Amino acid sequence: MTELREDGFLGGRLRILQPARGYRAGADAVMLAAACPARTGESVLELGCGAGVAMLCLGARVPGLRLAGLELQPSYAELARQNAATNAIAAELHQGDLARMPAALREQSFDHVIANPPYFIGGSPAPDEGRGRARHEVTPLPLWIEAGLRRLRPGGWITLIQRADRLGAILAALSVPAGAITILPVTAREGREAGRVIVCARKGARAPLRLLSPFVMHAKPSHSADREDLTEAAQAVLRGGAALSLGPPNFR
Amino acid sequence: MTELREDGFLGGRLRILQPARGYRAGADAVMLAAACPARTGESVLELGCGAGVAMLCLGARVPGLRLAGLELQPSYAELARQNAATNAIAAELHQGDLARMPAALREQSFDHVIANPPYFIGGSPAPDEGRGRARHEVTPLPLWIEAGLRRLRPGGWITLIQRADRLGAILAALSVPAGAITILPVTAREGREAGRVIVCARKGARAPLRLLSPFVMHAKPSHSADREDLTEAAQAVLRGGAALSLGPPNFR
Repeated sequence: MTELREDGFLGGRLRILQPARGYRAGADAVMLAAACPARTGESVLELGCGAGVAMLCLGARVPGLRLAGLELQPSYAELARQNAATNAIAAELHQGDLARMPAALREQSFDHVIANPPYFIGGSPAPDEGRGRARHEVTPLPLWIEAGLRRLRPGGWITLIQRADRLGAILAALSVPAGAITILPVTAREGREAGRVIVCARKGARAPLRLLSPFVMHAKPSHSADREDLTEAAQAVLRGGAALSLGPPNFR
Repeated sequence: MTELREDGFLGGRLRILQPARGYRAGADAVMLAAACPARTGESVLELGCGAGVAMLCLGARVPGLRLAGLELQPSYAELARQNAATNAIAAELHQGDLARMPAALREQSFDHVIANPPYFIGGSPAPDEGRGRARHEVTPLPLWIEAGLRRLRPGGWITLIQRADRLGAILAALSVPAGAITILPVTAREGREAGRVIVCARKGARAPLRLLSPFVMHAKPSHSADREDLTEAAQAVLRGGAALSLGPPNFR
């Protein structure tokens, strides 16, 4: 990893050092953090945390969490550690492979697991190796979900963001060990098909699956040069650090 | 089956005799028919056709289909036969169990299979036995899907309507033998979670899953005494017999 750059998240409230050209976290990590229903005093594990954007966004929104992150690539794990310190958010960072869970994490169970698993299966790795690993799937998606479920306490919550077209694989991995599956489609514009899904499920729960009304990112009917066409709801999450509720008031 | 009543569908274009108090087909059957991408000259099998509403709506919209229906309950199969004749729509009706596919159907393959499988698992059967069988699942949902896929030619399409909370089971049954899975959430009102899903998939296809923007049935923000608060799109389908496209113009 060579050149680094500092990016602002949540309207500048969070300062994150990321590789200028490697894998760079963006809106998806912020949306993931917004959707996790963690409350003060609870524990959260992020699988594949990269430079720590999702877990630190969550830490910025909900005070008093016990945060842990697992990252395969040592350089990103170290960046996440630095970013946590810079933003004065307590977080325990582990370097390791989720398919061979480090002993320090195997001994723990969490109230929440969050993950933004790689979006591309196979394919050619990006020129930058770090970026290639973060974007291209090495560990299959079901293994991410199984590893996450194993780290949850009974009744704990797993929250994922992923490409919408992988919904089948996500539901297949979740539906036996978890229930109360809630799907939030995320779409670029009103009326379009979903580009992403945020899926939240509860370990050992039996409540039926719910398919929510989509979350719309952009207000204008088509792409425009004006980049600030976020909907109010997207602005509240991305700039204002608001939570993204996946349920009714008594959701949890 | 005792008292029968004639109901109008597609703005009265279709006259359907149904039991006055038994299982009565409604908007879901019409939506299913609207979503099936059948074209003139193709063959369509409906599993569990009841009094034939879905297959006859499809026949009313697309001329020159070869329609076949399978229904477990002899009295409903007979009604479907009558309804086809009354509406002058050619259709072959079979009485039998989809779990033991009648030989006459086992010998055929179809371009399309449609089904509106029962919505309730187990539970107490309704006082009217016919209604109980139609609403309560006897044959598990995956068997409906497997039986349907077996009757499809390679590249043929299966289209289902079902409660949204059973999306996981539907995708699990579809995702190995079929692809190009397209999910249309159907919601009572804008911004609400989906009550139904229409799922269309293509046997042997490899195209990625698509999660479409929801179809909204009612225009008013909450329930009102005025029953005619259907959205324009819902009116076009339910009263006008319009198709419900699940894809871009080149969808098929």
